[in-house]
Amino acid sequence: MKKRIVLLPGDGIGKEVIDSAKDVLSAIAEEFNHSFSFDTHEIGGAAIDQYGTPLPETTVEACTQADAVLLGAVGGPKWDNNPSHLRPERGLLGIRKALDLYANLRPIKGFKNLLHASPLKEEVVSGSDLLIVRELTGGLYFGTPSERRDNGNAVVDTLSYSRSEIERIVDKGFQAAQQRRGLLTSVDKANVLESSKLWREIVEEKKAQYPDVAVEHVLVDAAAMKLITNPTQFDVIVTENLFGDILSDEASVLTGSLGMLPSASLREDGVGLYEPVHGSAPDIAGKGVANPVAMILSTALMLRYSFKLDDEAKVIEDAVQSVLDAGFHTADLQVADGRLVGTFEMTKLIVDYI
Amino acid sequence: MKKRIVLLPGDGIGKEVIDSAKDVLSAIAEEFNHSFSFDTHEIGGAAIDQYGTPLPETTVEACTQADAVLLGAVGGPKWDNNPSHLRPERGLLGIRKALDLYANLRPIKGFKNLLHASPLKEEVVSGSDLLIVRELTGGLYFGTPSERRDNGNAVVDTLSYSRSEIERIVDKGFQAAQQRRGLLTSVDKANVLESSKLWREIVEEKKAQYPDVAVEHVLVDAAAMKLITNPTQFDVIVTENLFGDILSDEASVLTGSLGMLPSASLREDGVGLYEPVHGSAPDIAGKGVANPVAMILSTALMLRYSFKLDDEAKVIEDAVQSVLDAGFHTADLQVADGRLVGTFEMTKLIVDYI
Ligand SMILES: CC(C)[C@H](C(=O)O)[C@@H](O)C(=O)O
Ligand SMILES: CC(C)[C@H](C(=O)O)[C@@H](O)C(=O)O
Repeated sequence: MKKRIVLLPGDGIGKEVIDSAKDVLSAIAEEFNHSFSFDTHEIGGAAIDQYGTPLPETTVEACTQADAVLLGAVGGPKWDNNPSHLRPERGLLGIRKALDLYANLRPIKGFKNLLHASPLKEEVVSGSDLLIVRELTGGLYFGTPSERRDNGNAVVDTLSYSRSEIERIVDKGFQAAQQRRGLLTSVDKANVLESSKLWREIVEEKKAQYPDVAVEHVLVDAAAMKLITNPTQFDVIVTENLFGDILSDEASVLTGSLGMLPSASLREDGVGLYEPVHGSAPDIAGKGVANPVAMILSTALMLRYSFKLDDEAKVIEDAVQSVLDAGFHTADLQVADGRLVGTFEMTKLIVDYI
Repeated sequence: MKKRIVLLPGDGIGKEVIDSAKDVLSAIAEEFNHSFSFDTHEIGGAAIDQYGTPLPETTVEACTQADAVLLGAVGGPKWDNNPSHLRPERGLLGIRKALDLYANLRPIKGFKNLLHASPLKEEVVSGSDLLIVRELTGGLYFGTPSERRDNGNAVVDTLSYSRSEIERIVDKGFQAAQQRRGLLTSVDKANVLESSKLWREIVEEKKAQYPDVAVEHVLVDAAAMKLITNPTQFDVIVTENLFGDILSDEASVLTGSLGMLPSASLREDGVGLYEPVHGSAPDIAGKGVANPVAMILSTALMLRYSFKLDDEAKVIEDAVQSVLDAGFHTADLQVADGRLVGTFEMTKLIVDYI
């Protein structure tokens, strides 16, 4: 298989972990006889510094022609006080919209030997394995008007969705539940928001098409509670953009493995952007100590979702598990009797296994 | 002191716990020589059944003339499939707006002998003591337009705030921090929303007026993480309506004492509505087993915030603590070697202490 992959290292540790992704994919290509080409472009703060914009045209063009995109991370204190259009996050929002990556998938599963690092009691969190399917290109993030009014004395943002935007993400949720344990939790605020009422209606309409999936509706405030008190009760959560932002970050700290969590942002045809859930961690950038596992597991998601290379994805996931089982860990993780390694060594261990 | 209090029992266990509130306040009145008059009105499902609306005019009028309002809880499966305007929650939203109760205060503090019921590890949650100040009458909950469009094929909700709406709640946050440990965490999504940018600007403008308060800005997704990983780092959190809804429910399950948490919703002049954080719990309603403590602690907040009766409030809080320390508990709580009591007995124990 021949695939063109665009690498967007971005900022901070993004630059380091993207190298790990490349090494792992090169090993997979060799082992399974694929040909992956890599093309690196700027986004976020690095792009602001070099091109005066967080999302240069050349980056968008390269991504548009790619089969998949890998992103490290964007942001850092250097650009925190920039005006809105010159903030690193704008690059991320812009590329999601430009590529129509409406479905953000975040699988959250604990690693047995890391569960001790969870803020939750082991008996509460143990066995949790959930997938958050977040709508990524609509809602409050992109609705208009979004502006000051009345001489700056008032402000509005707009939460807007079309029926088809809701339908396609709800379908993704149902399909994901079919491939997993068959339970879909739709999260909304239907007791207050009109948009949530339409959302709930659409979920109800679609039920009949997926008779093998059990559906429940949970209000977003209740979902925020249940994620903590009973995380194992969830299989797939489907929700709109802002609720998904909050709940997926909440969920990401439950298992004690934030540095291990990958994500996928997909378009209808399977083109996708893959990135770690963690951020650019400017405090440890450039030191060679960042945990590359979230980025490496993101490449596994890319192989599975964009290229349908399930076996290859599995090899990467097994490699990560084995290296962890052998006690190797980066500085962000505490493992009893473990062996502390840096970004490069961790990557090499995983590559060697492959 | 002579005060007129309106009681809104609402639905489910609301009816039971409101009786507890009345008993406790009668004891306080006798002990401290106050005169509290009580006037009971319907809201929520009970009002729908009796008057065909979740918020009858008579209820609004009575509340308008009262010095404070105590609310039990609203909602239940019976009304879950009603059209929007005939849902119990509409009564709650309506009375908040009608009385201009823009500041929702939710103190969250663990009880030592209940901490074991927390989903968090004791070393993570122990010592946490925070106050969430939530804007309650603006934002997405009340903005217009909030409607279907394009023949039902699209939908919008509107997040709108005026500068003065943000200023008054931010002031509340600063003032609360002054009276506590002097740390204000303002939560927003300023990297995406225009409304959050204005919010953050206003917080920055107001800093100078409160030199004794340290201020930090945290994005809502990061706040959802930090509440779990490090709840003790917070003192006062101030945020807009929807973020506050999600974060305060999330925070309410951290200490294992959801059945113990009170809330206050205040107007500028001190008039307020006080209610437990828990809901109407239809499954246990009418059985005399509901935990009345959240409702009773809500009356303490009423005495403190609306009537400036700090000593009386303290007596109630001490009474609750003593009864708990003696091992008494309702069925929702597990206490080793404790003594299980019902709603009525729990209330009597607290009244006797007073
Ligand atoms: C950086 C920010 C705009 C972004 C979001 O809110 O979508 C991030 O929090 C995420 O979840 O990927
Ligand atoms: C019932 C509902 C409308 C309400 C809200 O979202 O404000 C409730 O969740 C609360 O927090 O008091």
